[in-house]
Amino acid sequence: MTTLRALVLGCSLKSGPQESSSELLGRQILDALADHDVEGEVIRVADRNIKFGVSTDEGDGDGWPAVREKVLAADILVIATPIWMGQPSSVAKMVLERLDAELSETDELGRPSMYNKIAVVGVVGNEDGAHHVIAEVFQALNDVGFTIPAAGSAYWVGEALGKVDYKDAGPKPDTTGASVKDLAATAAHLAHALARDPYPAE
Amino acid sequence: MTTLRALVLGCSLKSGPQESSSELLGRQILDALADHDVEGEVIRVADRNIKFGVSTDEGDGDGWPAVREKVLAADILVIATPIWMGQPSSVAKMVLERLDAELSETDELGRPSMYNKIAVVGVVGNEDGAHHVIAEVFQALNDVGFTIPAAGSAYWVGEALGKVDYKDAGPKPDTTGASVKDLAATAAHLAHALARDPYPAE
Amino acid sequence: MTTLRALVLGCSLKSGPQESSSELLGRQILDALADHDVEGEVIRVADRNIKFGVSTDEGDGDGWPAVREKVLAADILVIATPIWMGQPSSVAKMVLERLDAELSETDELGRPSMYNKIAVVGVVGNEDGAHHVIAEVFQALNDVGFTIPAAGSAYWVGEALGKVDYKDAGPKPDTTGASVKDLAATAAHLAHALARDPYPAE
Amino acid sequence: MTTLRALVLGCSLKSGPQESSSELLGRQILDALADHDVEGEVIRVADRNIKFGVSTDEGDGDGWPAVREKVLAADILVIATPIWMGQPSSVAKMVLERLDAELSETDELGRPSMYNKIAVVGVVGNEDGAHHVIAEVFQALNDVGFTIPAAGSAYWVGEALGKVDYKDAGPKPDTTGASVKDLAATAAHLAHALARDPYPAE
Repeated sequence: MTTLRALVLGCSLKSGPQESSSELLGRQILDALADHDVEGEVIRVADRNIKFGVSTDEGDGDGWPAVREKVLAADILVIATPIWMGQPSSVAKMVLERLDAELSETDELGRPSMYNKIAVVGVVGNEDGAHHVIAEVFQALNDVGFTIPAAGSAYWVGEALGKVDYKDAGPKPDTTGASVKDLAATAAHLAHALARDPYPAE
Repeated sequence: MTTLRALVLGCSLKSGPQESSSELLGRQILDALADHDVEGEVIRVADRNIKFGVSTDEGDGDGWPAVREKVLAADILVIATPIWMGQPSSVAKMVLERLDAELSETDELGRPSMYNKIAVVGVVGNEDGAHHVIAEVFQALNDVGFTIPAAGSAYWVGEALGKVDYKDAGPKPDTTGASVKDLAATAAHLAHALARDPYPAE
Repeated sequence: MTTLRALVLGCSLKSGPQESSSELLGRQILDALADHDVEGEVIRVADRNIKFGVSTDEGDGDGWPAVREKVLAADILVIATPIWMGQPSSVAKMVLERLDAELSETDELGRPSMYNKIAVVGVVGNEDGAHHVIAEVFQALNDVGFTIPAAGSAYWVGEALGKVDYKDAGPKPDTTGASVKDLAATAAHLAHALARDPYPAE
Repeated sequence: MTTLRALVLGCSLKSGPQESSSELLGRQILDALADHDVEGEVIRVADRNIKFGVSTDEGDGDGWPAVREKVLAADILVIATPIWMGQPSSVAKMVLERLDAELSETDELGRPSMYNKIAVVGVVGNEDGAHHVIAEVFQALNDVGFTIPAAGSAYWVGEALGKVDYKDAGPKPDTTGASVKDLAATAAHLAHALARDPYPAE
């Protein structure tokens, strides 16, 4: 079985040196994927000077083209985002907007550039909002060609109006942790299946 | 100050004799409104044989016209709904669809029938989904003419993937309870203001 | 290649004899799937006396168990729903709530009952709302175990505040029609792949 | 009657000199408000070097504090946003996140800083997504204290999968234009009412 690649885009509003709960969940997903012949890396998007836009390259110091190369090289894309006001972070939205450009891109066989890639989502917040974040990210990524494996999300949030962060909440092996394992198993299985037997060119 | 009327529509999937967490939150909102010269009642929608549709009367035993009379008589509408799969209950959606008919109805001054009414939302679930439910209900009700007062929602959910119901979770005076009080104060204030000084006819 | 089965659940608010735009789109999806060794049928959900609830059988004349048998027998589930107020129909929401019960069900190998099934979505409305409907349906169905193929949706809506129905709008081969073909190709490919190589039991 | 102030935040992904359809709709809303004793201005957010974050001041060249001063001085906030992938722009989301900080701020009477302000929304896109954008913006702004007047939104989108921009689509007096007038009338009426009779301090 070929080793596949995953890319985790950590969509915290904060830059790199600060601890991020969403990046932590993203790393846990990457670790779980390693049990299924998938290796990869985590990128903190807020560090990369990504410009607002809906093209593959907004020019003039835009950090997206370098990130895009890694997306193109990946078999599995993991969006790891915090919840703000019950919604995905603006950094996650910026990433989705940049991926919107892929609707006009095709691979060497004429298939849309994101076909045959798997997408999964990890979401954390102090409180409420994960299901809606998952819904928005799935809809946007599927629209540009990503495939969503069974049980393709994992999340943690505290009780309503809570203030504790995931990174300080202690291990959650029976809830979020179990979802991470399920997600890694289905994502890796489906990525390997599509690697062997990709969607046909039209 | 005139006493105003509130109507709570409890949108549990369960019929009446069974305990409902969403109805409990609806009653707490009604109790809090009583401190601001607002009286009212709670209706369990699942008991009323409401038909699917988007008209004011779907005929043939439809229970909506009787509920609609109470909506028309109310100054404040409270939608109290459970969360299922991170989304409002189908019963709540059925209510919103029936209210869609009001876009074509006008009052005696030619104003849309729901103008000058206030809407607020109470949401409960074992876990995650409240913000999205609030978003959908606000958007739909505002579209048909309801006004949303500052801080017009109250909710409770447990930690991610939790299984405890609001009715069994014990009192939440510092979180959900505080929101109920805030919501009652703003809803009553705005309802009294619109009663004195309604939106003008066009 | 084995012939696979698709089930279209038409989620119009209207009962059977009345023409339904969402059912029309559902039938177009079924026709497109026939080009890829998939056969199936359309069920108008509003005709089936489905009860509100979140169990596999709500008893007492509940029409869901019969529909559920067909879901269990299908390889591809197509949710075809109208838009009301920018949101999925309450009938569609009722279907999602009934499918929520499948989180507690497993197949003969101990896998969740909906694993190895594909879900796609068809959405129609006079105007605006399709993306959000797709988001909510994907999130709910993926949560209970369905896999979403690349480009797994097709929709039609008119210009903002329009009043024309899809069934009266004339053919849309370059927009909605093209999406139907793409969706059928990816759904069938992935269903055949999962039939040969299902997600493993844990 | 006192003249009130409106602030339009144009949330295009594009910087200033480029024409923006969302800014055009924002200006139309401002013009309609002028008929009701409300004056104001339009800010193109993408020109202002706003930093990602959830505080009132992220330091180090952050453009938000200057924008925030204008929000604090306004009686009516207009969020004018494009639709990307059926969702609000990342620039709009960035604005909402910055306003999240206001939950911890109070005015001189101890009331939350955004109480007694009105919020309305203008949305444009080539196609589908307006209702969902409205839902998300209303929920976020109401949560931090804004009041939503009856019919508090206006939008334009083309037919499904369309490619025409609002600025090129020609006048829409009977649909979007009528909504702009309704919105201006209710927003101004409610802003004047709250100016005379604000929510009480707790």
